Formats: sequence, structure tokens, C-alpha cells
Amino acid sequence: MRPSGRAPDEMRAITIDTGFTKHAEGSVLVSFGDTRVLCTASVEDRLPPWLRGKGEGWVTGEYSMLPRATHTRGQREAAKGKQSGRTQEIQRLIGRSLRAVVDLKKLGEHQITLDCDVLQADGGTRTASISGAWVALRLAVNGLLASGALKEDPITGKIAAISCGICDGTPVLDLDYAEDSSADADANFVLIEGGQIAEVQATAEGATYDEEGLLRLLRLAQIGCAQIFKAQDAAVK
Amino acid sequence: MRPSGRAPDEMRAITIDTGFTKHAEGSVLVSFGDTRVLCTASVEDRLPPWLRGKGEGWVTGEYSMLPRATHTRGQREAAKGKQSGRTQEIQRLIGRSLRAVVDLKKLGEHQITLDCDVLQADGGTRTASISGAWVALRLAVNGLLASGALKEDPITGKIAAISCGICDGTPVLDLDYAEDSSADADANFVLIEGGQIAEVQATAEGATYDEEGLLRLLRLAQIGCAQIFKAQDAAVK
Amino acid sequence: MRPSGRAPDEMRAITIDTGFTKHAEGSVLVSFGDTRVLCTASVEDRLPPWLRGKGEGWVTGEYSMLPRATHTRGQREAAKGKQSGRTQEIQRLIGRSLRAVVDLKKLGEHQITLDCDVLQADGGTRTASISGAWVALRLAVNGLLASGALKEDPITGKIAAISCGICDGTPVLDLDYAEDSSADADANFVLIEGGQIAEVQATAEGATYDEEGLLRLLRLAQIGCAQIFKAQDAAVK
Amino acid sequence: MRPSGRAPDEMRAITIDTGFTKHAEGSVLVSFGDTRVLCTASVEDRLPPWLRGKGEGWVTGEYSMLPRATHTRGQREAAKGKQSGRTQEIQRLIGRSLRAVVDLKKLGEHQITLDCDVLQADGGTRTASISGAWVALRLAVNGLLASGALKEDPITGKIAAISCGICDGTPVLDLDYAEDSSADADANFVLIEGGQIAEVQATAEGATYDEEGLLRLLRLAQIGCAQIFKAQDAAVK
Amino acid sequence: MRPSGRAPDEMRAITIDTGFTKHAEGSVLVSFGDTRVLCTASVEDRLPPWLRGKGEGWVTGEYSMLPRATHTRGQREAAKGKQSGRTQEIQRLIGRSLRAVVDLKKLGEHQITLDCDVLQADGGTRTASISGAWVALRLAVNGLLASGALKEDPITGKIAAISCGICDGTPVLDLDYAEDSSADADANFVLIEGGQIAEVQATAEGATYDEEGLLRLLRLAQIGCAQIFKAQDAAVK
Amino acid sequence: MRPSGRAPDEMRAITIDTGFTKHAEGSVLVSFGDTRVLCTASVEDRLPPWLRGKGEGWVTGEYSMLPRATHTRGQREAAKGKQSGRTQEIQRLIGRSLRAVVDLKKLGEHQITLDCDVLQADGGTRTASISGAWVALRLAVNGLLASGALKEDPITGKIAAISCGICDGTPVLDLDYAEDSSADADANFVLIEGGQIAEVQATAEGATYDEEGLLRLLRLAQIGCAQIFKAQDAAVK
Repeated sequence: MRPSGRAPDEMRAITIDTGFTKHAEGSVLVSFGDTRVLCTASVEDRLPPWLRGKGEGWVTGEYSMLPRATHTRGQREAAKGKQSGRTQEIQRLIGRSLRAVVDLKKLGEHQITLDCDVLQADGGTRTASISGAWVALRLAVNGLLASGALKEDPITGKIAAISCGICDGTPVLDLDYAEDSSADADANFVLIEGGQIAEVQATAEGATYDEEGLLRLLRLAQIGCAQIFKAQDAAVK
Repeated sequence: MRPSGRAPDEMRAITIDTGFTKHAEGSVLVSFGDTRVLCTASVEDRLPPWLRGKGEGWVTGEYSMLPRATHTRGQREAAKGKQSGRTQEIQRLIGRSLRAVVDLKKLGEHQITLDCDVLQADGGTRTASISGAWVALRLAVNGLLASGALKEDPITGKIAAISCGICDGTPVLDLDYAEDSSADADANFVLIEGGQIAEVQATAEGATYDEEGLLRLLRLAQIGCAQIFKAQDAAVK
Repeated sequence: MRPSGRAPDEMRAITIDTGFTKHAEGSVLVSFGDTRVLCTASVEDRLPPWLRGKGEGWVTGEYSMLPRATHTRGQREAAKGKQSGRTQEIQRLIGRSLRAVVDLKKLGEHQITLDCDVLQADGGTRTASISGAWVALRLAVNGLLASGALKEDPITGKIAAISCGICDGTPVLDLDYAEDSSADADANFVLIEGGQIAEVQATAEGATYDEEGLLRLLRLAQIGCAQIFKAQDAAVK
Repeated sequence: MRPSGRAPDEMRAITIDTGFTKHAEGSVLVSFGDTRVLCTASVEDRLPPWLRGKGEGWVTGEYSMLPRATHTRGQREAAKGKQSGRTQEIQRLIGRSLRAVVDLKKLGEHQITLDCDVLQADGGTRTASISGAWVALRLAVNGLLASGALKEDPITGKIAAISCGICDGTPVLDLDYAEDSSADADANFVLIEGGQIAEVQATAEGATYDEEGLLRLLRLAQIGCAQIFKAQDAAVK
Repeated sequence: MRPSGRAPDEMRAITIDTGFTKHAEGSVLVSFGDTRVLCTASVEDRLPPWLRGKGEGWVTGEYSMLPRATHTRGQREAAKGKQSGRTQEIQRLIGRSLRAVVDLKKLGEHQITLDCDVLQADGGTRTASISGAWVALRLAVNGLLASGALKEDPITGKIAAISCGICDGTPVLDLDYAEDSSADADANFVLIEGGQIAEVQATAEGATYDEEGLLRLLRLAQIGCAQIFKAQDAAVK
Repeated sequence: MRPSGRAPDEMRAITIDTGFTKHAEGSVLVSFGDTRVLCTASVEDRLPPWLRGKGEGWVTGEYSMLPRATHTRGQREAAKGKQSGRTQEIQRLIGRSLRAVVDLKKLGEHQITLDCDVLQADGGTRTASISGAWVALRLAVNGLLASGALKEDPITGKIAAISCGICDGTPVLDLDYAEDSSADADANFVLIEGGQIAEVQATAEGATYDEEGLLRLLRLAQIGCAQIFKAQDAAVK
């Protein structure tokens, strides 16, 4: 039995509210149960130095938790003077995942930054960030297309992410904090609509797992992402 | 005529939603028009080193803007590796203001941190932070009183803050971004219910001002804070 | 009775020695009693990036205390690797105050940096810095006018600053360290010769204050600044 | 055809030289072709603060590249003042992987740090680090057992890591730099002798991959790790 | 002919003013011509962690230049967020030199920090710092002896430092900035009264030098330090 | 008797292995007994900002110890976020020493960085670094001459460095760690083939020394460097 009473392949409620803030070119408040992340897409004309003058664009991600998004207050990274290894890992994952469904040449010399700020955390913040950031990106690109700044859609597909894990020997979908902190294995899948995989990160925490376990987690992730793709569709419309 | 069409002594709409996030001992989403700040109060037992063993508590504030709270995206302070002078000034002001209405001896050996994270900015973020933080503090202290962790209420009064300024020669109340960026003088007042002043910060920006101007701004601030005190009352109930 | 035996509206002895160091375009050792600050004005041709090519200049301030300017030794900010919030607040105040009496267009593409280094501290270091920095600035600009680098005087007035406070219920002028550390309210005024105000920062420390108190502090500041303006005049001649 | 002329499932030559340096409790120079990493195991009695007094030990990893390990010189992280996100990701992976085969309770209150310093890089530095670090750890623990500092062996198994990828549509084993920089997908597997998986990190770089692709990469990794386990055995004897 | 018109073995005027500031246990303004350094000695009871409980004391030095001590303004190290290699080298030299004439056991569990802040620079700031710091140290220790905090004098001798160099082929004593910046070789000597050497740092800048040159520079340093020892004697009395 | 059984003027075994790594333009593993340093020379076309467009090149050094090069593990400077004063001192010495034998005008607009990474430390790491770096530099410049990138040899001579010290009253050559940590005086000499001196750094550690002692140390250094010059010759051929 899961702490939340959910079935092993049961997701938490997903909500994706667009337009949560007004300045960003794309703005989304995404919730997976009690996990809530504000994802904004900012379009800028300046590119990182190593891309200038190549006729290509860039998509990147940034991630942060508000200090009291969690059960106990965490120190601000700005006050500590550096971002943790965990933050940097997640930021790199968000950017890499979104770029997997963007044709940077078609994006032209624009940079789109996906800021994912966790307002409340209950497990799965990095996967919620990716799933929400895609919607923010979609909205921002829609704006560029509408304004004529882009002629051709650079987005090549839909991407979503979900965590799965093995808890007390059972593979389960969409871990909340109670499960996440006690899972034997913890995996994050980033999947592209249509069956392709963008990223698998599967880590043994207490116990290890085998090929069969990995496949069962992947199957759960496919179930979960199918639902996220639907929620993304609904949000964009 | 003000850009927003408001009368010189007219405030923007104030909303104070409590319980916006679930982990913090006090949590408030405060809005002054389009300015929206998430204020949380976190109670901890550890004190700053210089206060340990003195039988007193501490109240402190932290402040940050999400990168896309503003018209154009700002770089994260965590990525830059340090907090700006502006951020530190505001943090110090928030903490000092709240301490003006707390009896630290009665608070006992607790530290309460008021985190003020600006989700959307349209002028007056520091004053909204103070006004909202008082409600978050009140809620957190109520919890300590209810649980018996505190026997006596350490909060000695109600505090609110508002910005005023001189725009095109006219003193106006509760500046939004359009006014803030073009005002001749810009003042922040932190007032205590009952007529006392906790802090005045009045700065000439383009033109200077005189004693008469300072008094007129103070009168406007008194009008504004009276309305904030009411909104605080309503939120706490 | 004040610890120093001064009357409530009595300033400490002011001395302003010009030419204390030889390299700076303007150099002043300013003393308010035992508070001694070395203020230098450095003229440079490079501007901050956001001002380049606009045909305007810039005036900015920096502030530091020598480690043993105070009763007990403080750690060097260079060794800590960052400037404190207090230092940054004061630096911003110095720059803002001086800019209030400079026409940046007339200054042309020059940057003048006012470095205020506290050699010995006994209260009122930030206000002494501003009062001394004006003299250093005046001397540096005189040099630019004499050399023909400037055709027109960009300085529009004289500026001075002084602290006042409420000690044991009595408003007093020009606080020394003994008063500063025990005052109920502490205010810094930056005034322009002729009656205009550039900045008011009035903070309740132990007790709060009211409108009447604020006005009495402002009146004291006007008395003090009148004396500083005279000392500035004498120093510049 | 692979740039190196190897068959798709062919590893580069592996060498593991023990005792490369004399001070560390375990010291190994590991080579996978031209990739050479110095792995040392340092045993210390001080633990991270959050583990003190719990009767458990800790195993952690650190990673760095010498500035000219690569084709072009990279700036030192010590000179930049911070470790890159990539470095931190790899360090976390090394520590997590080694801990997957250590019983921290049996290790007692010892901390073992695995320092992996890349002397020369030609792809696969993180997996070479893990494979070599296990040998350094084994040697250090052997020393603790021999000296009587440990009564029981805390190492529960053998761990190895290898990279695989999809190059021009073909899954290949043990990528060198030429392949790594042009692969469509890039995966790192950390496997435990006996069939268990400690970690999978599989990332689409240019093209994405599907479940079938993931499984084929895993099979290659199993082939590769079998050879590494043998080399580890030979090195330890 | 030297730029200053001095003879090759002629020092600049030395002045050592004691009591320049009032808070420090020892305070000295030392001048070698236009080079002026404020040296303060601060006595504290806290020791660096690695010395605690060993019944010994510590003597250490810190060094900084005011930003406009030099011909052109230098950026503050506190603003840059780190101390330069040059600053650290000089600080280490100051501390090491002073410790060469202190019996740390006799000093007991006191730490004395010598802060050397250069108010105006014209060559030889590090050697002026050492020569002045000895006087500040002497005054601080005299205070400890007078108050009974120390029973026995921990200072074992007098130490002074001077720079010499080879300019246009001629060895010269006490280089000013004009000579320092064009010297072929530049040497700093730290000598103990009575003929012993504490430190030699002799660096070829443009041309190299030989054994004969090194000895001639040492002889000049002996001449210079003899005069400094006299000035120190006069200052302490 | 020396701990190693060596005669006072006896060096440790010197080995200089070229081509230790393959990417650098010059690569050397240098050993003085158990001290082993990897020195690489990297040629780049970008120059430090202050040298651009002057038609000159630059030679600079960087230095680091692997964390477990020493008896006990040291924290990584990259993890601490800054380089120690000792590291910076050594880096500056390496660069300055190598520049003493390079005609920067003849080098043209190339920058050569000598990275000296200590794999194992047993005293004398900075002098081994300089002696090895010269060989790496020589190899890199040979490559530039062979490729035609340079027409004329910018290297003007051979440079080597060695440490000497006074141990129990006896001057000894090439200190190992056991001697280095207990020497009364410790000196590093950087000598140019032919009798010229580039740098002397002689520091009293416990006892002081006199002119006679300094000369005896210099004589020992000349003996040592003569042997290093031979080893450098053999390595380059």
C-alpha cells in the first residue's frame, strides 16, 4: 500500500495553469499533487558567447527551490554564494531535455530560458519542472510565431518527465516525498511523445535493481507521460 | 493624472491570501495590484551564534525576486554568486521592521525567518513584503501560542509599509512601476498602528524635496497604512 | 546629559584637511570629533558599461572601515570575500547623495569615484563620509575646470549629512558611538544648502517615534548642516 | 566502422596499476586506452557533521581534470573559484556508486574519499574513475582489515562502470573522445558483479532512442563490465 | 643619478608617529618619504583553531592598499571578492617576519594582528609595513606587560626591512616608485638587529644578477636597517 | 646525518620523463626522489588583455597539488573556492622564473602556460616545478620552431631551481619533507646556467642566519643546479 493510498501505476492530480504571471513570454504554474512549480519562458536576443553569429538559437533551464518550499527551511543558494551540485544537475537536465525537442537552427538567434522555481515541494520537482517548462516554451514560441519573429515552428515534439521508483519491492509511478525518501531505487524518465526516450536516470538508493526492474519502471513512465501529454495539450489550447 | 488613472491618495487593490503554501508555519500571498509576493514565516530553534544562551529570540527577513518577476529577465543571484546591495538593503529593512513590533525576550529561543519572494513585480515590492510578512509572522506566532510553545504573545503591535513619491510635482500614494521609475522623489514608510513610525526612507531621485514635501508624503503613507492594517486584520481572522 | 557633555544641539568639532594624500585628484581628511575619514576623489575616463556613449558622466562612492578603526578589530571584507550589507548600503547612499548635486551631462564622459575609508570610528562615519566627499569632489572638479577638461561647472550645490537621534527621550545632534549604540531612534539626513532634502533615513531602534519626533530631528539636522557647509567653504578656499 | 577500428562490442585496452603514489591508503592509475585517471583512497577519522556519532562511516568521491588533460587547455576550477556543474555531477555519481557496494555500518566511523584526477582524457573519464576507484577502495579497506582497524569487510561486492552510445545508428561499447563528441546517444552504466544495476544515465544527444536501443546499450555494458571485473581482480591480487 | 637626487646608499626621510589612532593597542603611522602606512597592533584572546589549548600565542599580519594610495585608482579587493596573490604574499611575509622576533610561548594565549594599511604608496610599502609593525607590536606588548597580562617580554629582538635594487647597473638603497618600476633587480631584506637575517627575497626583473650583486644589495640593506633601528628606538621611547 | 643518509651536498635522484601525456605541446614528469610533478606547456593564441596588440607574448605558470599528494589529504582548492596564498606565491614564482629566460618579443603573440601539478610531494615541489617546466617549455618552443610558427628561438638560457636549508646547523642541499619541516632556515634559489641568479628566497624558520650562511646555501644551490642542467639537457635530446 502506498502512503497516499494510490495504486502503483496511479499518478497524482496534474494541473497546468497558464498565464500565472504576466511579464514572461510563457508562464505556467504546474502541480503534481502538492508539488507546485512556477515555470516561465523568457525570450531574449542575446546568446551565450560560444553561439554568437552561428545563426542558431539556444534553450536553457534554471531551477531553484524557494527556501520554505520544503518541510524544513533550506538556506538560500544566493546567500550561500553558490548553487549546489543538485541544483546544477537539475538545471542541466531541464535544458538538455527541452533541447531534445527543439530545432535550434529554426529557432534563429533567440535564447529561451526556462526558469523553474519550486513554490512547494512534495517529490518529483525536477520532472514537474520539465513537464511544465514544455508548456511555457510552447506558449513563448507561439508568441514568436504569431508576431512573425519566427516563420517556422522550431518545436519538433512534445516532451514530459516523470519519476518512478521501487518501494518495498514494488515499482510505483510518480513518487511523492514520503516515497521518494524511502525508495530502494529512484528513476527519472524524460520521454518524447511517440515512444522515443530523451533521458533515463535510474539510481539504486538502498537496494540495487536488475534489467527486469528497469523495464518495469520504464513501462510505468510511459503510462504516466501519456497522461502528462494530455494535460499539456489541454493547457496549450 | 496617474498612469493607472488612480487619484493621488488612492491605493491599488490589496489582497492577502493565507495558506498559499503548506509547509511554512505562516504563509501568505500578498498582492498590491500586480505586485505579488509570497511571504512565509519559518520557525526554527537554532539561533544566530551571537544570541545563543541569552534567553531571547530573533526575527529576520530574506528577500528575493524570481528572475522573471520583472519586465526583462534578471540574472539569478545564486548564479551570480552573491546578493546585490539592493537585496541586502531590503532584507535588512524587512527584519528591522518586523523586530520593531516583537518583544524578543517574550519570543524565547526561537528564530522566525520571514522569506519574501517576489513572484511578480510592479513597484512597491519591499513594502508589500513587510506588510505581508507581518501576517505570516502573526500566523506563525499564533501557532506557537496554540501549541503552548509560547505562553505570552511576543507581538506588540501591527506594522505595515507603503511607498509614496512625488511625480510631476504631485505627492502620490502606492507607486506602481511606471511611477516608481519616473518619480522625482521616492519614499518608503514603515508605520505602526496607532501613529508611531518605525522607519522613513525618503530619497530624492531627480528633483529634491523640502520639509513640506516630506510631511505630505508621510500623510499619504498614514492613509495607505490604515487600509493595510484593515486588510491584515481581515486576513488573520 | 549627553555622555560627551555636549548640549543637545551641539556638534562635535569639525576639521577638514585637504591634500592629505597626493595622488588623488581630490583628497580630504575629515574629522567629526574622533571620527576620521579619508575621502579621495578619483577621476577616470572609463565609465560603467551601461553609460558608455551617452555623453554623460558618473559619480559613485565606495566605503570601507580599516579593521581596527573600531573598539574591537573587525575582519577585513577582502579576507571574507564579500562586502557586508551595511557597507553596500552606505556606498549606495554616498553615491546617490553626491549625484544629487551634480549635473551628469555637464560632467561629460568622466567617472568620479569617492573613496571613503574610515581610519577611526566614533559614530557618524557615513555622514562624515558624505560631508567630506563633497569637498574632495569639489577639489577634483576644480582641477578639471582649471585644466580645461571641463568648460562648465557640473556641481549644482553643496551637500552635507549629519546623524541625529533620540536618546533617553531627547532629540540630539551628531551622535557619537556611545549615543549611537544606545539611541532609541537613529536618523541620517542628507541636506542641500538652501533648504532642500536629498535623503532621510530614520529608523526606530528601541522605541519608535512619531511625526513630531521626525520634525525635531530634521530641525537639528538643519542646524548641524549649516555648520558643515561653513566648514566645507573654508576647506575649499 | 569505428574511428579506432574497434568492433562495436570491443573495449579499449584496460590497465590498472596499483601503488602509483605512496601516501594514499589505496592508489591506482587506471587506463582505458588513452584515458588515464589517478584514483586514490584516503582514510580519515573525521566524518561529515551530519554523520557524527551515528556509528556509521562514509564513502565519497571527488573528481577533477588536470587543465591540459584535454586537447585544448581548460581553466582550473580553483582559479575560477568554483567547480562546474559537470564536475559536481560526476563527483556525486562516483560517491553514490561506491556506496552501493559498501555497508556503511560495517565501515565504522571512517570516511574514505576517492579522489579521481584525470591525467589524460580520451572519453569515458567518469566511468574509468568509478572502475579504478573501486580498486583503490578495496586496497584501502584491505589495509584497515590487516591493521585490525576493521574486523569485518564492509565491501559487499564489486562495481564497475562503462559508457556506451549509439554512433551512426550502431550501439557501440566504451566510447573514445571521437565517438563521444559525435554520438547520437550517450549512456553510462554502473553495474554490480552478479547482474544488478547501480545506475543508468542514458541521454539523447542528437537523435533520441527507444526501449530497444536502451536494452542493447545495457547488453553492451554487461559485456564491458565483465572484462573490467577481471581486470579489477587481477589488480587487487 | 637617482631620480630623487639621492646618493646610492641614501635613505628617504623616515618618520614614525605613534598613537595615530586611538582604539588599537599599538598604532603607528610610518613614512619612508612619500610612502605612508598605518600599522596597528590588535591584541585578542581568540587564537586560530590549530593553536588552541597549546599554551602558545600567535602573531600575524594583514596588508592592504587604499584604492587611491597609488597613481591610478585600483579596484578594492573587497569589491573583487578576493585578495590578490601579491597581497597574500606580503601578508605572509609580514607575519613571518614579526614572528622571527617573538617567543610565542612567552606570548601566552594571545593573538596579535598587525594591520598594515597603505595610505599613500611610493615604493617600499611592504618593508615600511614590517618596520612600522614592529613598533606597533612593541607598544602593544608594552601595554600587556604594564597591565600584568604578560609577566615576561616575548619580544626577542628588533626587526626592520628595506628594499634595495639594481638600477642602471648601480645598487641603490630604499627604492621609490620611479626606481622600483624600472629596476633590473629588486630585493627585500628583513634584518634583525645584531647582524642576523630573517628573510631575503631578491628577484631579477629585467636583467639577472650574480653573487657579487646579491652581496652588495645586502650591504646596502644593512646600512638602511641600522637607520630604521634608530628611528624605531626613538619612536618607542 | 641527514634523515635520508645523503651527504650535505648530495642531491636526490633526478628523472625527467618527456611525453608523459599526449595533448600538451610539451609534457614532462619530473622527479626529485619521491617528489613527482607533471609539468605541461600549453601554447595558445589568446593573450591576457593588457598584452593584446603589443606584438609580444607571455609565459605564465600555474601550480596545484593533488589532494593526496601529501601524507594527509588536503582539501581541493576548487572545492574551497579559492587558491591559497601559498599556491599563488608559487605560481607567481614559476611564471617569473621562466620569463627570466624568454625574450617575450621573440615569442610573438603566443601565450605559453606551464601547468605544474604535483602528483606526489616529498619536499621541493616548487623548485622541481620550475626545473621541469623549463623542459616542457623547451619542447613546446621546439615545436613552434619546427612548424615555422616561430622563426627565432625566444629562449635565452637554461633555468633551474633547488631548495637548500640549514638543518641542525648544517647547510644541506635539496631538502626532502623530513628536512623541510624541521629546517632552521629554508631557501629556494632559481639559477640561470652560466652563473646568474634569477631569484633568491631565503627564510628563517626557527633560527635566523647570517651573511655567511646565505653564501653557503647559494654555493650548494650552484652544485645542485649544475646537475639539473645536465638532466634537462639529457631530457631535451
